[in-house]
Amino acid sequence: MTLVSFGETALRFAPPEGHRFETAREVSLRADGTASNVATTASRLGTESVWLSKLPDTPLGRRVVAELHEHGLETEVVWSDDGDRQGLTFYEDAAPPREDRLIQDRERVAAATITPGELPMDVIQAADVVFAAGSTAALSDTAAETLGAVLRATSGARALDLDFDPGLWDADTARERLERLFDAVDVLFLNEDEATTVFDRSGSPRELTHTLASSYDFDYVFLTRSEHGAVAYHDGVVHERDAIETDIVDSSGQHDAFVGAVIDRLIAGSATDEALLYGVAAAALARTMPGPLVPIEAGEVAALVDRETSGRR
Amino acid sequence: MTLVSFGETALRFAPPEGHRFETAREVSLRADGTASNVATTASRLGTESVWLSKLPDTPLGRRVVAELHEHGLETEVVWSDDGDRQGLTFYEDAAPPREDRLIQDRERVAAATITPGELPMDVIQAADVVFAAGSTAALSDTAAETLGAVLRATSGARALDLDFDPGLWDADTARERLERLFDAVDVLFLNEDEATTVFDRSGSPRELTHTLASSYDFDYVFLTRSEHGAVAYHDGVVHERDAIETDIVDSSGQHDAFVGAVIDRLIAGSATDEALLYGVAAAALARTMPGPLVPIEAGEVAALVDRETSGRR
Amino acid sequence: MTLVSFGETALRFAPPEGHRFETAREVSLRADGTASNVATTASRLGTESVWLSKLPDTPLGRRVVAELHEHGLETEVVWSDDGDRQGLTFYEDAAPPREDRLIQDRERVAAATITPGELPMDVIQAADVVFAAGSTAALSDTAAETLGAVLRATSGARALDLDFDPGLWDADTARERLERLFDAVDVLFLNEDEATTVFDRSGSPRELTHTLASSYDFDYVFLTRSEHGAVAYHDGVVHERDAIETDIVDSSGQHDAFVGAVIDRLIAGSATDEALLYGVAAAALARTMPGPLVPIEAGEVAALVDRETSGRR
Amino acid sequence: MTLVSFGETALRFAPPEGHRFETAREVSLRADGTASNVATTASRLGTESVWLSKLPDTPLGRRVVAELHEHGLETEVVWSDDGDRQGLTFYEDAAPPREDRLIQDRERVAAATITPGELPMDVIQAADVVFAAGSTAALSDTAAETLGAVLRATSGARALDLDFDPGLWDADTARERLERLFDAVDVLFLNEDEATTVFDRSGSPRELTHTLASSYDFDYVFLTRSEHGAVAYHDGVVHERDAIETDIVDSSGQHDAFVGAVIDRLIAGSATDEALLYGVAAAALARTMPGPLVPIEAGEVAALVDRETSGRR
Amino acid sequence: MTLVSFGETALRFAPPEGHRFETAREVSLRADGTASNVATTASRLGTESVWLSKLPDTPLGRRVVAELHEHGLETEVVWSDDGDRQGLTFYEDAAPPREDRLIQDRERVAAATITPGELPMDVIQAADVVFAAGSTAALSDTAAETLGAVLRATSGARALDLDFDPGLWDADTARERLERLFDAVDVLFLNEDEATTVFDRSGSPRELTHTLASSYDFDYVFLTRSEHGAVAYHDGVVHERDAIETDIVDSSGQHDAFVGAVIDRLIAGSATDEALLYGVAAAALARTMPGPLVPIEAGEVAALVDRETSGRR
Amino acid sequence: MTLVSFGETALRFAPPEGHRFETAREVSLRADGTASNVATTASRLGTESVWLSKLPDTPLGRRVVAELHEHGLETEVVWSDDGDRQGLTFYEDAAPPREDRLIQDRERVAAATITPGELPMDVIQAADVVFAAGSTAALSDTAAETLGAVLRATSGARALDLDFDPGLWDADTARERLERLFDAVDVLFLNEDEATTVFDRSGSPRELTHTLASSYDFDYVFLTRSEHGAVAYHDGVVHERDAIETDIVDSSGQHDAFVGAVIDRLIAGSATDEALLYGVAAAALARTMPGPLVPIEAGEVAALVDRETSGRR
Repeated sequence: MTLVSFGETALRFAPPEGHRFETAREVSLRADGTASNVATTASRLGTESVWLSKLPDTPLGRRVVAELHEHGLETEVVWSDDGDRQGLTFYEDAAPPREDRLIQDRERVAAATITPGELPMDVIQAADVVFAAGSTAALSDTAAETLGAVLRATSGARALDLDFDPGLWDADTARERLERLFDAVDVLFLNEDEATTVFDRSGSPRELTHTLASSYDFDYVFLTRSEHGAVAYHDGVVHERDAIETDIVDSSGQHDAFVGAVIDRLIAGSATDEALLYGVAAAALARTMPGPLVPIEAGEVAALVDRETSGRR
Repeated sequence: MTLVSFGETALRFAPPEGHRFETAREVSLRADGTASNVATTASRLGTESVWLSKLPDTPLGRRVVAELHEHGLETEVVWSDDGDRQGLTFYEDAAPPREDRLIQDRERVAAATITPGELPMDVIQAADVVFAAGSTAALSDTAAETLGAVLRATSGARALDLDFDPGLWDADTARERLERLFDAVDVLFLNEDEATTVFDRSGSPRELTHTLASSYDFDYVFLTRSEHGAVAYHDGVVHERDAIETDIVDSSGQHDAFVGAVIDRLIAGSATDEALLYGVAAAALARTMPGPLVPIEAGEVAALVDRETSGRR
Repeated sequence: MTLVSFGETALRFAPPEGHRFETAREVSLRADGTASNVATTASRLGTESVWLSKLPDTPLGRRVVAELHEHGLETEVVWSDDGDRQGLTFYEDAAPPREDRLIQDRERVAAATITPGELPMDVIQAADVVFAAGSTAALSDTAAETLGAVLRATSGARALDLDFDPGLWDADTARERLERLFDAVDVLFLNEDEATTVFDRSGSPRELTHTLASSYDFDYVFLTRSEHGAVAYHDGVVHERDAIETDIVDSSGQHDAFVGAVIDRLIAGSATDEALLYGVAAAALARTMPGPLVPIEAGEVAALVDRETSGRR
Repeated sequence: MTLVSFGETALRFAPPEGHRFETAREVSLRADGTASNVATTASRLGTESVWLSKLPDTPLGRRVVAELHEHGLETEVVWSDDGDRQGLTFYEDAAPPREDRLIQDRERVAAATITPGELPMDVIQAADVVFAAGSTAALSDTAAETLGAVLRATSGARALDLDFDPGLWDADTARERLERLFDAVDVLFLNEDEATTVFDRSGSPRELTHTLASSYDFDYVFLTRSEHGAVAYHDGVVHERDAIETDIVDSSGQHDAFVGAVIDRLIAGSATDEALLYGVAAAALARTMPGPLVPIEAGEVAALVDRETSGRR
Repeated sequence: MTLVSFGETALRFAPPEGHRFETAREVSLRADGTASNVATTASRLGTESVWLSKLPDTPLGRRVVAELHEHGLETEVVWSDDGDRQGLTFYEDAAPPREDRLIQDRERVAAATITPGELPMDVIQAADVVFAAGSTAALSDTAAETLGAVLRATSGARALDLDFDPGLWDADTARERLERLFDAVDVLFLNEDEATTVFDRSGSPRELTHTLASSYDFDYVFLTRSEHGAVAYHDGVVHERDAIETDIVDSSGQHDAFVGAVIDRLIAGSATDEALLYGVAAAALARTMPGPLVPIEAGEVAALVDRETSGRR
Repeated sequence: MTLVSFGETALRFAPPEGHRFETAREVSLRADGTASNVATTASRLGTESVWLSKLPDTPLGRRVVAELHEHGLETEVVWSDDGDRQGLTFYEDAAPPREDRLIQDRERVAAATITPGELPMDVIQAADVVFAAGSTAALSDTAAETLGAVLRATSGARALDLDFDPGLWDADTARERLERLFDAVDVLFLNEDEATTVFDRSGSPRELTHTLASSYDFDYVFLTRSEHGAVAYHDGVVHERDAIETDIVDSSGQHDAFVGAVIDRLIAGSATDEALLYGVAAAALARTMPGPLVPIEAGEVAALVDRETSGRR
């Protein structure tokens, strides 16, 4: 396997656009997890990818896998029969200035009990890139240790998305626990909010990216700024890209699509600025698609990149 | 009861967004009346509120009350068994420059036969604020007289929303009949269109507000201007506020949310400009929610007011 | 025109199957009137047909015509601009033993003001069959007189469906007013309930049919008994047919489909028992289709008749 | 208050009829708890009723209350801010012989922490009937003790529904813990399955009912048998009633509707066999309505009882 | 008949807004063909119109006609029993910068076999305007010849819409085959893309319009530029109009609505610039309505034209 | 691979239950092909399975694979870029006595061009069972020859489902072409209608099964009779089983579920009567699930078999 992606995936319930749970009678159901979202995008763009996680062997757990398979993603799931819960989230999307709401309901989920012994370590070892979602470390000490073990087990590159959610843990705890893993991380992904909240640092995006890379000795840092574009650090240089302007259908999948596209390009050997451009293009397309898990096609990312590069519209 | 709100509430049928009745096969069904919309917002923001009206004792009449209860509003309804009709409206929302359509079908509705003797006059007497929707006076002479009796019965403040609809009566009749009530009105709510149509006056919003207050000796006049903000007159001073910029999901609930929030603040003892700001914030949130009856929460109005006041975004 | 069908058509609102208006948020919208239902079935089976009525020139009135045209029915509508209402009904279908509910809201509808002078009398005169729905006589004296004038104007056969609804008028009034028209009626359609309610007669269906024909000197009487079949009187003979057994999707269109098919056959010159069989077959197919206006095809009625006749299944 | 009903209420998610979570994308959302279902039916039939419980102060907790209010039920809710969960269930309905599935997800719910001190004991004391759902005792020792305290606090009659679910606790634990409460129970409700599973007893329904009443000295025992009717014991006599035959839309609300109707009748002073008949009639109507919380009307229960008594159909 | 419109109409399947066929489970179904879209708009605006085409006598063919009739359009259809296919398209709408997709599936459709002998040539001969959709010539040589025969058969004006789709034929073939018809064309409609793709010409819209008119000796050329307005050539003069600004619900019907409105005006004797303005107004309204076949009303086009002319908003 | 399943899979469009295409606006979209349905059931029951076919490389072709992957089926697809079509069907389900309709639109589909050289012959060679859908031979001579080549290539058992559809070819052609393959078929699946239509034979199901086995020297013949059960021939003995009684949600998946379960059991080494029982149980469960591709679980088939065997209900 070229990309091995590790982390919990929840089922996300959401009322129709603009509505609230308080008066909702019908809600949509979608698999939503950074690790599986990222692997799905990378897989759709051409990188051989597999998602590793642990789920309860219930209709809810099987629901997660069915949706990932529908998108063509390969999965290696540890199925739990011990009464562990399926992680759930409840999402109310809102038009600005009203704020989105994300209620976390992820206590005692199956992934909180995952141990290195349950994972296919040979697959992890042989991967080109191992990617992990930082939020998984919030589930339990066991999960946090397994996450560390996964990153340390590979001979490939190690990528981590901060994936911080205040409903799971507070910023200080998150920083402390994740910092212990940073020596095993080559590529860090985060968004602008996380940079200020988790690391409690201020400064321009360029400065933040540079500082984080220096402080923790990362090879790459990619920082997304939604409609303001993205910034990348590598080898002492900071690259910056504006977002591609789009109509917005649903912005919830854009960051993970960015990450998936960047990883796909890094594995393909692209230079940092090219990877950044592909990430920005994938994020733009993701904003035009409903849901967190988006059916992006390689051809349309390439076409958009081409359009941006050539300046034609 | 702190707020007593009096007026007819219709059932509103509407085809899906952008569609027309001509080719619609499924339509939505919502309770829609200024008096109940306003009381619902005030109640959700913390003011003890009750809605008074008369409805037919049929599945349609019960439908109205069920939706108001769902939002937590208390109701005191006179149930009619005399074959009176339920008020109906048929609404086609349209993207500009196409114009919304609202077909009124409110002949012979139960509320047209309401008399003061049917109402809990002690509750009205003891209210801090009695609010009435001017459109109710269009239903019949009986309803118009009862509306006047309700306003005159209280020892609290009297508020009236002009709530003019050309499908119910013409502007001259509306003005004539409502003017007879103005001596019993302390607070007038209206929107900019109504100011020009019903009162046939021109001038800037500031001027209109001031003139109306002077002409009829109102304590307060609140004039809403949808995406252009709102204006308030009190005690010789005119206050003005820009609208808070929003994505627009459905603008049909914004005016009534404004009124509900202003009343909530006036009862709480806020100054005019603070009440105006809360009204503008509630209207902004209402534009991000579908339907005329919106599930606004006190916390998010306060947060938005705070954001506006502090200048942070 | 071969068949001219005269009568009011309402818009019928209904919540989803098994649900009630009290808690419904989405309702379906369908054109529903005996005269247009019957003409649609006859037209779909091959009889050149036109529906005559009066509607308000509003989106609701146009909605009625759009649905009839969709089924291929020709219409001649008098459009009213005088603020007349569109007839409405509110229907809650219910599984037995719970009873269906039909709320009539048909005061002041456009068809109540229709006069013979507004109708194309030459078309009526030349028809092979003129059909009228008795319920139209409940709308107003004007409508009742026009209904009589329509029946008397033709040189073809005159057919009337009793189409009694207790929400429109009481049984005694209905009988009295309709009896005045019976001298101008050659063919009477009714269902078993109407026979007992309106005519206050008891007896077996065979007896009822025979007695009604004798009392009022009808050429034909067709009496439907839903899942118990139908009975026909003509020329001193009573014919009887069991219903064809079906799964039931929606039984609301079965009677009118029966009438449409019988008229189609009588115009084609079929004998009474053959017309009865076609009516029973059309009613059976209508029970398998949702809604009051059903997309029956001539070929499938013929196939079902053939199956019944041959005894094959 | 005449009826005070105590117990947890969950949010129930369910895919469309016949579908599974594994492939579902849209699911319905309904409040479902025996205590609130029963109180809703009693309230709709005319008994003044209030539901007592504890919920998290989140959009999910508020969703529960909104639906109960929509049905006109009064509520007294202890709102928890401590991060307690909202109880959830996941329901797959299935046509026979496929079996329904109900997945319980009720760990750490707010109601598990409820204490007598949080409840309005004066209201409980003064009630005519206090009803409790046995399943609430499965949530925690605290909840079980509070349930006992509620039953012991009233000077009215005490009713308990066994409400056993194998996904919450095993039969032996349930029996042991509930037996400790039986001295404070005057009226027991259960269904046939629970009689055999929880009490591990065999015998005819008449025998089971009689034996349970004798063993635990209940005043009344009501045992429901879905499409086979129900049995009641009181004062040494066993009454039995066949179910009223119905088309089945959704059978999930029938038992609780039975209980609500029986309690309404007992409070009204009905004899046992009359209460039983009303229960059976309410259950029949509930089978024709979708969902666990059904909009039954007093008039239609009375009409159905009348039809059964008179033998007319 | 005043307008006779000739051309194939497909059934268009489309997933919900923003979604893709890859993961869609429900798709909408709409009749979509330039000839029927144009005739529907002209008919709704008041021009007596009929659509001529050939369809398979199947449920899919009948579906096309039912939708056109619903919009009040008259049709003269040659029904094929020879196993010919119904033309299908599969449409994925996308928010920019993602591009819409239109998959053509129109091999062996019934309209490909249509011959002049099957058409009512007397109706064509007597029309004021005969309109044809150029795409029909892509179906087969037979269809292309019949299209030519139709244009040549009338004594009225001949209008052609280029209606080029790269999924049907390539630009060179299209130009070659259509050029053979241009001597029988008085009025040409096209959009800006087609001007460059099919004719391989560059230049400003004004220049393109003028050049095309000169090259092929058209009386009129109308060129639409979606949100950039439209240009018209007649009698040596080029007229230009900006688009009327709108919120965009669905832009797929705008070009055909433009054409229908222009033809309606030309038949009414309007000058070129007035026809252009009506076309631009109809296109604006069409952008606010979902689907390719839009329920525009004459009154609202006139009101919008009036607003534009008077400068009031 | 244990089971290799070969054959075309279409996309099936269907209006909502009871509705017709003529008036439908929303239709469902499902992958439907005997080869993939059978492999999906076998795979869900535990047999390692792969589906082999050819599809166009378009959104429609990818849609087929996405749905199969969602059900966990492995696929080996030859992707065609040559403009081949995706096979389509249009299905109207109908309640009896109205008959279902299935319109075939499968000309020029990608699978019609499939050649043995495109297939992974080593996988086919090594399979325990190779299954093929007879309908694939109707697509073209090429497809028919490839189907033969697939059956002849394996060293495992060869199973064929007759899968006859009169919309694809006539019975005589089907019989002639399929008979040429019968020497390479060990196990034949068919339903009762096909036995009489394709083979033009009469007799009891037992006789038909026996005769077909003798005439063509099949090892096994399995004949399904929907609600009348199924019959199996093997080794000179005919086994018969009644259907398990069910409520019917959708009967369209029952035959293929039967076949999948029988193959799963034969591969597991079950005796004929046991395989037959599992087939009947899977068919029963399939009737309770919507759509042609059903999410059956191994556990529930086993439980139903156990219930049938033990006689408990």
